[in-house]
Amino acid sequence: MLVLSSPSGAGKTTLSRRLLESDHQLELSVSVTTRPQRPGEVEGRDYRFIDRAPFDAMVKQSELLEWAEVFGHRYGTPRAPVQTALGQGRDVLFDIDWQGTQQLREKAGGDLATIFVLPPSIPDLEGRLRTRAQDTDDVIHRRMSKAADEMSHWAEYDYVVINRDLDRAFREVQAILAAERLKRERQTGLTTFVRDLQSKI
Amino acid sequence: MLVLSSPSGAGKTTLSRRLLESDHQLELSVSVTTRPQRPGEVEGRDYRFIDRAPFDAMVKQSELLEWAEVFGHRYGTPRAPVQTALGQGRDVLFDIDWQGTQQLREKAGGDLATIFVLPPSIPDLEGRLRTRAQDTDDVIHRRMSKAADEMSHWAEYDYVVINRDLDRAFREVQAILAAERLKRERQTGLTTFVRDLQSKI
Repeated sequence: MLVLSSPSGAGKTTLSRRLLESDHQLELSVSVTTRPQRPGEVEGRDYRFIDRAPFDAMVKQSELLEWAEVFGHRYGTPRAPVQTALGQGRDVLFDIDWQGTQQLREKAGGDLATIFVLPPSIPDLEGRLRTRAQDTDDVIHRRMSKAADEMSHWAEYDYVVINRDLDRAFREVQAILAAERLKRERQTGLTTFVRDLQSKI
Repeated sequence: MLVLSSPSGAGKTTLSRRLLESDHQLELSVSVTTRPQRPGEVEGRDYRFIDRAPFDAMVKQSELLEWAEVFGHRYGTPRAPVQTALGQGRDVLFDIDWQGTQQLREKAGGDLATIFVLPPSIPDLEGRLRTRAQDTDDVIHRRMSKAADEMSHWAEYDYVVINRDLDRAFREVQAILAAERLKRERQTGLTTFVRDLQSKI
């Protein structure tokens, strides 16, 4: 399980998309949310948009691995698709915030790698938020405050990537994923592989 | 500090050289050894070739970070060049065996990443050992036995790379190095960087 977190506007969503396009062993955990769908967002790809009552029912039935409320809207990670993917030997990418990451860490134990993406500067962050033309000044102001708050959690993550250049940041995230897969404890079958080699000498 | 270990013939030395050529932040720790120089080996690049008496003097004066005896010859890692490189913010690559790695781990604590390179098969391993035309059959036989012994230590390493294809193995080692550098605790100045970002919102 790979977590990408960042303040809104640091480029996390673009990085996630590129990573998913380049790596077919990796699957996105699509969150459920009670917030309204934005123009350009696709149901089932960006989020599953649901009402508050079914969301709360999922919470009650422990169907969410983690959930949190942000600006009055709820966001959560359905448990079943994650278990299915992991059970089939695929890796799962989570585009979630620090609250979700904390909950996931408690539930997932060691098999979790976490990356925090930072913007190179505040003008850069604000620029990216303003490019999303659909947001009002008020929403942007709230997002900037939230960014400051979110950034304070960088030290809870395994890796930190500063998104100075999208291509470079992408290569860095790819390297982290590749390295995490090469960790001894994640490679199944090595004991047998080495025993087999030794038996042939 | 990055350690590359493998049974002789698994491609470790080629991987080390390519890594050093591609990455000027990385410096090789050149071992001292009492074994005779082989044709093609360069004093000061591959090893520093010294006599037994000065070797033992270095051991006595704690000038070696680690040392071990293999086939009657001693190999050790001088402490001073490593400390100089690390002090100047460079990373150090160690091409050492499991005995050296164990000693280094004890002395280096957390700031060490270790990679074990495995051959894809025994014919492949033997083929590579035979390509080094200077070795006799007897030497090759001893190296194969030592390879079996060395391989039994794979589980003491952080990462395992199977050298099925040299280019791929090289990219994997590069990814590990890149990811290790992106680990939060290795990036100095992040606290100040984030505080500075937050102060500008």
